[in-house]
Amino acid sequence: MRVLYRCSRCGYITEASSWIWKCPKCGGPLDLVIDGLRLTLNERRDLWRFSSVIPARPLASLGEGFTPLIKADFLGSNTYLKLEYLNPTGSFKDRGSAVAVSKALEFGVRTVIEDSSGNAGISIAAYAAAAGIKARIYVPKDAPEGKKSLIKSLGAELIEAPSRAEASKMAVESVGPNEAYIGHAWNPWFIQGTKILAYELLDQLGHIPSAIVFPASAGTLLLGLWVGFNELISLNIVNKIPRLYAIQAQGFASLYERMHGGNSGEPTKLADALRVSNPPRLEQMVSAIRDSKGDVLVVTDDELLQSWKSLLRRGIIVEPSSAIALSGYIKLLNTSYLSKDEDVVIILTGSGLKYIDIMSKI
Amino acid sequence: MRVLYRCSRCGYITEASSWIWKCPKCGGPLDLVIDGLRLTLNERRDLWRFSSVIPARPLASLGEGFTPLIKADFLGSNTYLKLEYLNPTGSFKDRGSAVAVSKALEFGVRTVIEDSSGNAGISIAAYAAAAGIKARIYVPKDAPEGKKSLIKSLGAELIEAPSRAEASKMAVESVGPNEAYIGHAWNPWFIQGTKILAYELLDQLGHIPSAIVFPASAGTLLLGLWVGFNELISLNIVNKIPRLYAIQAQGFASLYERMHGGNSGEPTKLADALRVSNPPRLEQMVSAIRDSKGDVLVVTDDELLQSWKSLLRRGIIVEPSSAIALSGYIKLLNTSYLSKDEDVVIILTGSGLKYIDIMSKI
Repeated sequence: MRVLYRCSRCGYITEASSWIWKCPKCGGPLDLVIDGLRLTLNERRDLWRFSSVIPARPLASLGEGFTPLIKADFLGSNTYLKLEYLNPTGSFKDRGSAVAVSKALEFGVRTVIEDSSGNAGISIAAYAAAAGIKARIYVPKDAPEGKKSLIKSLGAELIEAPSRAEASKMAVESVGPNEAYIGHAWNPWFIQGTKILAYELLDQLGHIPSAIVFPASAGTLLLGLWVGFNELISLNIVNKIPRLYAIQAQGFASLYERMHGGNSGEPTKLADALRVSNPPRLEQMVSAIRDSKGDVLVVTDDELLQSWKSLLRRGIIVEPSSAIALSGYIKLLNTSYLSKDEDVVIILTGSGLKYIDIMSKI
Repeated sequence: MRVLYRCSRCGYITEASSWIWKCPKCGGPLDLVIDGLRLTLNERRDLWRFSSVIPARPLASLGEGFTPLIKADFLGSNTYLKLEYLNPTGSFKDRGSAVAVSKALEFGVRTVIEDSSGNAGISIAAYAAAAGIKARIYVPKDAPEGKKSLIKSLGAELIEAPSRAEASKMAVESVGPNEAYIGHAWNPWFIQGTKILAYELLDQLGHIPSAIVFPASAGTLLLGLWVGFNELISLNIVNKIPRLYAIQAQGFASLYERMHGGNSGEPTKLADALRVSNPPRLEQMVSAIRDSKGDVLVVTDDELLQSWKSLLRRGIIVEPSSAIALSGYIKLLNTSYLSKDEDVVIILTGSGLKYIDIMSKI
């Protein structure tokens, strides 16, 4: 397998033989071009069951991936829930972290640096811990207290920034020798982990679903699905991509605003995991939605709250940000974008166990 | 498959055709006698992959079981961690709840009742929610606040009792028509869920380990392993049982005191999930340990705290009660009960995500 970086903006190409997180020519986000992709399943029961299509060795692994896919009987017989919140640190980001931290280790990195509203920070901290290297995590000071505590308990250095944007800036500027900025919103290795969701859904269902509904902020899940399904097409395993429906939170809906215009309202108070203002891969996100013939929707905090309660009352313990996928699904049904007869997968991204301290207040 | 209740104390036998949680003759704990047990694996990727040996239909399921088994590289190359904390509600109890609530539903029950120090209550509440029936959960008033909030958010009725023992008493006395007391420490169906751990370990490892190390309080995990491995022997699939090492918390070590005498110290302040004083199946627990040629150890809060921190620093987010298994493993190595060359599985039972509100204080 030969792997190249290719800039998604200016097309600059170079061998992927060291850690680069953005294009050295134009500063655009990098993609990976993989030559000689071949799919052979192995016996593992985690992300690395699909090692043959992952351009990294499993050096940092905590049992990520291979999460349950259950029928959502209360929504209709062809609706499935993909329980990404049962990943090792309670979020789908573990897929990306496992691959990115493994690759950083392969490149000789001794400290990984991340900016995060919480979940990515927890995930990177845990995988750095598993790999025996250091982590330095920048979070906005209003990130949930519990998430901040957990990052510290995992042995990472936690630095609080005045805002989410400031956290990014501080993280990038802090990088020293033998250190690597992960930057999950930028990182092309991270998407090599999230792309495995496409392979897994095919493996679990035996066919590809008609549509997939999921939360979107920085686009790592959307682009993972897009890359994964496109690889499956290039491997002649499937012949089309499911319609991808990205659901965004009010006030943090760059993708929606870019595609449909308008203003998405006051910043969400509940979907703390989705507070990303300027996703660097916005143009790719637009292409992914258009190519798949899907769309993007915005969900309000009121709608989110209703879906969150409804999921909890079904025994499904997700975080508030994840619940917007259910709100989005219901809107799509009501507006006939989706029909009850279609095979639809709703991706539930993060664990509600991180929120039990605030549940009594809602 | 024909299923009978058999009293473990007086031997009374009756058809298992309705919900009974203790012997109607002598009040002893009931076992199930299953006639015509046969093992055939199916394609599911959860507990119900082993449906052929479970005497219940999967009426309440949230993706339980089939949890990752990872190599614990920091402990030695033959040591494995079984990540039971990645079950749907963050505890191994989901295995038992899935089977017990499914069976209750099959018997026409409309409300399930449970007493719990937290995790079993969360689990039963979630599975009742998934099954669309009611749950009433009795907890000691000093159970962790977050766990109590979650039980309510799952739609269950939460009733606080002055103590753990009082919670049991109140739960049992409250049972009305069409209601069933689950009582996981008593319930024979619950163990039909936890026994699947034995089948899964064999399925994942390809052979049985030399020894298994795990926390013990009411004995549902210990007895599940014991029943499961004995079934595998009766099916002629394996020819011996791994040595079972039960690890108990200080002050709640009935099994240790019954087998070795003495007093296990002040009640634990950290292992809240293990605070069970009079396990109804104590005599069976003793037999299981003796039959397997294993043993029982007590771990202090100081030792627990060290192991908890050490696991977190490896990216493994478990609850304090689970960490005693690691402390126990280290003691067993140091006293030559175990050698580094042996295949050993350490079972990590509960999720640390339920504790992120207290992590900053430790």
